[in-house]
Order: sequence, then structure tokens, then C-alpha cells
Amino acid sequence: MSSPILVVGSVALDDIQTPGGAVREAFGGSASYFALAARHFAPVRVVAVVGEDFPGAHRALLEKRGIDTLGLEVAPGKTFRWGGRYAEDLNERTTLFTHLNVFESFHPRIPETHRRTPYVFLGNIHPALQTEVLQQIDRPKLVALDTMNLWIDSARSELLDVLRSVDVFILNDSEARELAEEQNLLRAGQRLLGLGPSTVVIKKGEHGAFMLRRDAMFCVPALPLAHVEDPTGAGDAFAGGFVGALAAADDTSEGSLRSAVAYGTVVASYTVEAFGVRGLCDIDMPQLESRFAQLRDLTQFRVVRDTHPSKAYTGAGREPAS
Amino acid sequence: MSSPILVVGSVALDDIQTPGGAVREAFGGSASYFALAARHFAPVRVVAVVGEDFPGAHRALLEKRGIDTLGLEVAPGKTFRWGGRYAEDLNERTTLFTHLNVFESFHPRIPETHRRTPYVFLGNIHPALQTEVLQQIDRPKLVALDTMNLWIDSARSELLDVLRSVDVFILNDSEARELAEEQNLLRAGQRLLGLGPSTVVIKKGEHGAFMLRRDAMFCVPALPLAHVEDPTGAGDAFAGGFVGALAAADDTSEGSLRSAVAYGTVVASYTVEAFGVRGLCDIDMPQLESRFAQLRDLTQFRVVRDTHPSKAYTGAGREPAS
Repeated sequence: MSSPILVVGSVALDDIQTPGGAVREAFGGSASYFALAARHFAPVRVVAVVGEDFPGAHRALLEKRGIDTLGLEVAPGKTFRWGGRYAEDLNERTTLFTHLNVFESFHPRIPETHRRTPYVFLGNIHPALQTEVLQQIDRPKLVALDTMNLWIDSARSELLDVLRSVDVFILNDSEARELAEEQNLLRAGQRLLGLGPSTVVIKKGEHGAFMLRRDAMFCVPALPLAHVEDPTGAGDAFAGGFVGALAAADDTSEGSLRSAVAYGTVVASYTVEAFGVRGLCDIDMPQLESRFAQLRDLTQFRVVRDTHPSKAYTGAGREPAS
Repeated sequence: MSSPILVVGSVALDDIQTPGGAVREAFGGSASYFALAARHFAPVRVVAVVGEDFPGAHRALLEKRGIDTLGLEVAPGKTFRWGGRYAEDLNERTTLFTHLNVFESFHPRIPETHRRTPYVFLGNIHPALQTEVLQQIDRPKLVALDTMNLWIDSARSELLDVLRSVDVFILNDSEARELAEEQNLLRAGQRLLGLGPSTVVIKKGEHGAFMLRRDAMFCVPALPLAHVEDPTGAGDAFAGGFVGALAAADDTSEGSLRSAVAYGTVVASYTVEAFGVRGLCDIDMPQLESRFAQLRDLTQFRVVRDTHPSKAYTGAGREPAS
């Protein structure tokens, strides 16, 4: 039986420029991407803030897809705005502007009915706000948290505080290296495990994802795509697929976590193929399942039986002592 | 039954500087790394040239490990020398010098007894020399070829010529993009398939490897390593494990190719953990098998049964038409 998910994060209007095109005031934000990804798997409840200028069509886009917007607060002022430009190869991004607007004085309020949601995602907002969310919720089964270099730089101690109460820490490779102060990604991940979370998931963009636990590691490649339109939101969509799959299975075992990383990868692949949230809106579960099967096929290998190298050749056994 | 392998490439004396240390006149070269990797799987025959200054201990190192050096020619003059320095994160390498020496006038001569070797690896040498090798050999079962940006820049038409007679093209990601004149790696790989080879294997260093065929794709991550000492030769060692595993199985089916990419990945992981060829000399087949099993465990995932997302939740099925 699938369990509901609570997400707290940003809802934004994004200006995005890529080598292939540009959009203005597109529906975005970490909570939006997460919710539109996770809703394929389980019921999703959004807590976030928008301004009075927030288009009704965007709220309707969430609600028509079964996403609970009771916690989507409207505050006096303007909606959070972000602008970014991608370089030719889409791997490098420059932030052109960040207008916090209503986000500047935001304090998340979890509606009474949502306080016992079993799966919780703390999207990329100030770690002190992430802690405020945890103070309002009641015995969740799993809390996952995302962050970014801004908070690692400017709110490190608050981030370390909230991490002590988190089960799954999701971040990208450069953030992992920065927070752990360690270039080697395996050692960086091991240090992050020491901060509290039992699971660390490191997103590597086009190079896939890497999950680390005290007693297990798991790697999955990104799906090779012939066309990438816009990487915006891929990390949040990944998190949505990941937490979504866990909530759908209502299972946080290692096997379920591995499968969830794969679902996250699949959802992210659809996200980057179109501008903004469009890639997430146009897909359905059969498409996700089909690409999940592709991802399995892409990564599957076995020993070629009867012709096992160590049995077929013993020449190298004549190893000299020196 | 394992089949023999013929490798033609360079044998060199390398000066290597990394953030962790430095070595001078270390035993290196593409044929050396390849042979020391492949010999774990199948009998290996080396064809290359060295100068009169080549230390007998290096030849002995190959021979003691069962590698056939009948084709390791000694020419008047000095052995090929290469010097390189790695940056802090070991991903960037600067070539400090390249002294071709005896390599300048080298033309590979395949000994009569070696002309029917079923598995052939054309190591990273001038493509015109790679063609000379193919003209001397008789109906091999599989020919694999490696190259580098130097030949893509300076001998493109000769490279395109030899590629028409090759089964497996092994190269790294930046070389693939450069030769294909295409930034997207999937599209680049597809273009390379159009040049002749039925299989393209793109090495991505710490990000693993990507195999492409007309009807199949396969990705494998690199093994996460806590300590990388020296990346020199990792690509040649990968090729040695790859061709070695194919020759050991004497099977070039897709399943065997996948398994071979995994063995190449495993051999490369040992290579980078020590300076020069040492990592390849110290290991044995049980260690390779153990890391092969680790690589399988690292990449394995499945649907969490009975709690399959698409069955557990039907909320997203209420998709609006708009």
C-alpha cells in the first residue's frame, strides 16, 4: 500500500536559458519538481509559499494531478524568482539572479492533517527551516533531505544540526566534496554517513547516482539520452522518484532503496528531455516502468558460464615468487 | 578453452608525477599494461620495439608471467620515453615530454608463429602501423583497437581507414566526442558505429565505461576507490581485461562483451591503486573474481516485489486530459 509523502521546499518562477532555447517565468522550484515526480508513485502533500502574483494555472497544474496544495500558502508580495543560464555542454550553470521575495520571511507551517505523514522530503531550503519542519511532524518513517552549496557555505552549523535527524541525505557530487572537505568521493560519502544519515545518495548528473550506507554501496548510471533540453529540476525530480518509490513500496530496506535510486534516475531522465516541468507532466507510469526496464537492461551483466576465465586458463597461475 | 591474444603497442619508460609521489623510468607503454592485464585471462603475445637500453629486468617481468616476448624487438637506439604530471584530483594530465626514440622508425613485424592469433589488440600507436599489423595477420576472430587524440588530430584519414577492419573500437569519452564531432556521448557513439566497428567501448575514467552496439547499450560504473595512486595505463589495462575475458571465454556474444567490460573495469581498478604496472603485477585471479563480484553487487537492483509502485498507487492514473 502506498504511503503519503510530505514535501517542503520552494515554488518558483524560473527564467531559464539553454543553448537550445529560453523560457521566462516558468513554473519551477524544488517542491514543484519533487511533487510532480513523486505523484506518479504516491499521494503528495506540498508545503511552500508563493506570492499574490502566482498564476492560478500553476496551482491547478498540481491539483489536477492529485497533489495536495493545502499547505501551499499565499503570502503578500511576489513569488520567489530564479534565473539561470546553461553553458554549451549543459553541465555548467550560471545563476543570473535570485529574488527571494515572499521566501525571505517564510516559515513553513505544516497543516494539522499532514503532521503524521510517513515519508518526508525536506527540499533545498535554509537548514533552519528544515529543522522547523521536523519540529512540527510526528514520527515519520523516513526523512530525506536535499541541500546546496549556498547552505554549506552560509549555514553550515544549522545544516549539521538538521542532518542529525535525517535518514537519507541527497546531494550532488560537488556539494558532497565541499561539505566533507574531501576530494575522493567514496571517502567524502563515508564522512557524510558520520554526520547522522544512514543513507547518502550522491547525484552525479550525466554520470548517474551513487548510494552509500555503512554496509553497502550502489551505483546506477544515468540513462544515455540523445537529446537533453534543460537540466533544471533534475535533482529534485530524482528525489521525487526516489522518495516516491520508497513510499509506494512502503519499504525502506536496502533492496527498496536501490530500486528507488533507479526510479529516481528514470524520472530525472524524462525531466531533462524537456524545458521546465513539462517532461514530468507528460509522462505516465507505464513509460516510467518501460524506462526502468531499460535501465535494468543497460546495467545487467553476468559471468559467461562454462567459460569462466579462472577455469579456462591456468597459465597465469604459474606466478613467480618475485 | 582460452584463446591466445596478440597485442601490438608501445613499450616505454615513463616518468610519472602525481600529487602523491613520482617515479622515473618506470616500465610502461600501452602493450605492457595491456599484456600484464590480459595475461590473467589468456596467453598473451607482445609485438613492440625497445632500445638497447631497455632493462633486462622488465623483459623478465613479462616472461616470468608467461607473456610471449618473441615479437619484442630490440632496435639500435633508446627506448621510447614518456613523461606526465597529474593535477591534484588526478583527472587532468599534462604530458611533459614524448621521446619516440626507436619508436620513430618502428614497423611492427608479426612473427610467423603468431599470425593466426585469434584475438588481436591494436594498442595506441599510429593508425598506419595498426593497418600494417592487420595486413600481416590471418583471419582473427576479433580485432580491438585503441587510439588517442594525437592520431585523431594528425592521422584522421589513416584512422578512419583502419577502423573499417576493426570489430571493437575502444577510446575515451573526450576522444569519442572529438572524432565524432559531437558533444552528446550517445550520438557520438552512434556515429562511431557508423565507421565500421560493431562495438564501441567508451572509457569514462572514474565514471566507468559505456558500450554501444547497433542493438544494445551497456553501462558499468568504475569501482569506488578510497585511494587512487596513479591513473597511468588504466585504459590499456581495461582493454587487457576486456580482450582477455573475451579470449578466455572464446565468445564474442553480447553477454560475453558485457562481462568483458566488467572484467576490464575490475583490472583497471587495481591498476590505479599503485604506481605504474605494480598494481597489475601483484594481483591474482581470485582477487579479480572477488572484485568482479563486488562490481555485480554494486550495480544490482530489482523491482521490490508485491509493492510495485504502479500497482500500489493508482492516484496518478487520474490524469487530466489537459
